[in-house]
Amino acid sequence: MIEYRNLRVALLGAGSVGSQVARLLLSQGDEFASRIGARLELVGIAVRDVDAPRDTELPRELFTTDASSLILGADIVVELMGGIEPARGYVLEALNSGADVITANKALLATHGPELFDAAEQVGAQLYYEAAVAGAIPIIRPLRDSLAGDRINRILGIVNGTTNFVLDRMDVNGETLQDALATATDRGYAEADPTADIGGYDAAQKAAILASLAFHTVVPLDRVYREGITGVTKAQVDAAREAGAVIKLLAICERMTDPETGEEGVSARVYPALISRDHPLAAVHGAHNAVFVQAAAAGDLMFYGAGAGGVETASAVLGDVVSAARRHVVGGPGVAESTHADLPVLDIGRVVTRYQITLDVEDQPGVLAAVARILSDGGVSVETVQQSVPSTTGPVVIAGAAPAAAGPIHGGGTATATLVIGTHEAEEAALAATVEALAASDVVIAISSVLRVEGS
Amino acid sequence: MIEYRNLRVALLGAGSVGSQVARLLLSQGDEFASRIGARLELVGIAVRDVDAPRDTELPRELFTTDASSLILGADIVVELMGGIEPARGYVLEALNSGADVITANKALLATHGPELFDAAEQVGAQLYYEAAVAGAIPIIRPLRDSLAGDRINRILGIVNGTTNFVLDRMDVNGETLQDALATATDRGYAEADPTADIGGYDAAQKAAILASLAFHTVVPLDRVYREGITGVTKAQVDAAREAGAVIKLLAICERMTDPETGEEGVSARVYPALISRDHPLAAVHGAHNAVFVQAAAAGDLMFYGAGAGGVETASAVLGDVVSAARRHVVGGPGVAESTHADLPVLDIGRVVTRYQITLDVEDQPGVLAAVARILSDGGVSVETVQQSVPSTTGPVVIAGAAPAAAGPIHGGGTATATLVIGTHEAEEAALAATVEALAASDVVIAISSVLRVEGS
Repeated sequence: MIEYRNLRVALLGAGSVGSQVARLLLSQGDEFASRIGARLELVGIAVRDVDAPRDTELPRELFTTDASSLILGADIVVELMGGIEPARGYVLEALNSGADVITANKALLATHGPELFDAAEQVGAQLYYEAAVAGAIPIIRPLRDSLAGDRINRILGIVNGTTNFVLDRMDVNGETLQDALATATDRGYAEADPTADIGGYDAAQKAAILASLAFHTVVPLDRVYREGITGVTKAQVDAAREAGAVIKLLAICERMTDPETGEEGVSARVYPALISRDHPLAAVHGAHNAVFVQAAAAGDLMFYGAGAGGVETASAVLGDVVSAARRHVVGGPGVAESTHADLPVLDIGRVVTRYQITLDVEDQPGVLAAVARILSDGGVSVETVQQSVPSTTGPVVIAGAAPAAAGPIHGGGTATATLVIGTHEAEEAALAATVEALAASDVVIAISSVLRVEGS
Repeated sequence: MIEYRNLRVALLGAGSVGSQVARLLLSQGDEFASRIGARLELVGIAVRDVDAPRDTELPRELFTTDASSLILGADIVVELMGGIEPARGYVLEALNSGADVITANKALLATHGPELFDAAEQVGAQLYYEAAVAGAIPIIRPLRDSLAGDRINRILGIVNGTTNFVLDRMDVNGETLQDALATATDRGYAEADPTADIGGYDAAQKAAILASLAFHTVVPLDRVYREGITGVTKAQVDAAREAGAVIKLLAICERMTDPETGEEGVSARVYPALISRDHPLAAVHGAHNAVFVQAAAAGDLMFYGAGAGGVETASAVLGDVVSAARRHVVGGPGVAESTHADLPVLDIGRVVTRYQITLDVEDQPGVLAAVARILSDGGVSVETVQQSVPSTTGPVVIAGAAPAAAGPIHGGGTATATLVIGTHEAEEAALAATVEALAASDVVIAISSVLRVEGS
């Protein structure tokens, strides 16, 4: 029997992830000791209410309300409380005492990351956060270490399981947003108040974390452009399906050239976007997550798996605990977070992407020419125009049309026609102004959908 | 301008990966220095022939034939020569001198891994090998670190791009093996002598490396069961497609219970297997690689990307170089490779999986009963039987049939019928003996295909 030294682990929080972390630490102690060369001793679990009902069989004597005493003397502190305060205070206490900290707290990292990383660097401690993005999927370590010798150009992430479940139900089962959300709530994929998920707030926090890491640049949460899925309609999802595409809520982190200044910058943004069915992200169903990474040398990579769940996320937390423990065993300070690149974060208006605009127009001569002129005046170049008239059997595709020169889209009558316009890459600001001009135009009855197209 | 200390990098080998590593080290020096906090100085490139023609613009004065002198005094040695000797000797020289070593040499690791890891541990150096498996895809670090707190149960990997390209052409384009291999050679996906790839030798080396890492157990190359794709026929691929499946060459690493002893063991094996079209691995096309990992807590994960290519593999090598360099900057010895679990490696005969057996039989009464009795006597339980007679329009599926009790499979005549039998899980040894008994039976004209079924 090998005698190992002990490493003291303090756990803050005993929710769905915390209770699984505690259970695995207690039940797999020998295995962890063999892997690490030291024994992990769970010295206590800080909770708000020691007497609250819990579904696990964790020893009662581990629970305490005194987080600060627990942190004092711990080698490794695992913060799974969530929220900003008191989590932030405890994490700083832990780092200042020289402990390594493992956290799954995306809100805290997205809003106070630099403060925490600075505190860690001051004392040579390490802050690990694999579980903060995409649950069980290893993505932080691959970005920080495996791709440390490469140049990451773009990340497209499905990083919120609730919204992916909802959009997938709408796509696969033809449900409305409301019905799909009700199913998600029934099955425990959505919380009672689903705002953080369907509003895109959760995904935006993850985008801030991924962009900061990938581009060696602090990207604060308030510089992440955000749209949720509340505006996604069944009609949009159905139209996407018919066109060989699917709507996904994407967290996009992109290295790009500022179209105004010509200088290098980065963009972080979250919105529902069309992607082709051929794209690997299109096959990510249910509440799964996936992160698609485009790097200069490595090319396209994808990381796929469970984005949430107590035991799944506990796997990521424990991977960090073992890494931290190994570092304690071999010695040496932690590697500091790298923000040396310090690139400017571009506004959403500067983002360049492709768009699909769906318009209801009067089905009479000259309408297409008028619409095309508005687009052209706005600096938005058209790639495809597709017209569908309710009474015809299928849409007419005019790929690569030169719409300004085209004639009437449909002879005679005063019925309504639908135009689906696919644009070339355009600046978001130009597009927004152009959509406003279209809305104000006499020939346009309504703009029924504006979607960005990603994943080319 | 920050003054950085220098870290001396010696490169052994200047092939397609080595020349890209050298190019990126020379061209992105400032970027690497910012990320690391030290400057990477490429002190030389050891090659067999300094005057050999090379397609890159690397400075002539970097080349030398004296690898040992280059290694002496280097902080980091990058071995990209391939093959066992002299690579093994140089890697040992480097580790013994205290240098960290980065290698993409799967053959060396699969055959001499323990010796090299021991040498590294003796001096507290680190041996990195992300590029040895699945090219640019981060898989070593996720297995070693991200999943260090989890229990890996199974890995199914498409880890050889050549064979995946060939099988994908056979599936998507309906080509024969010979035609698909000719295309692969034309496009540079297969070497002039493709034996290492299509014989499964390359995949077996990677299976040995992955199994050793995932199960904390030395799995020597000669304990990896191996079948290549040379026996895969167009008829098998076509039949798989019609049945909603696809044939992939899989490297399988599995934690399992020895069916004979009841004790825990591991299996590492490579063979072409049927997987359902619904499985994420079925969507891995062309020369791409993907590694599907099933872990106790994390659930199913998949890592996808380019499995080969000079610049892609260079990304993985440079990720390791930056990791090694960061460790030099912060100090502390490396983390030793963990083989504490030391589980027995099971023979292929002990492996339990499902099978699909395709038989040509005489189409007359009593044949199905006779075939079913042979299977039953051999301890192989039948899940589905499907019969196709050339003259009928489609196969008759008898799902969950109890074939021993079934009557004649087709009334009258002496024509040939084809039976496709899907088995429940069976031991490989039992299956092999049963297939022999079938072959020896009077009612069986020929056994046209035996395929394992994976990915359930």
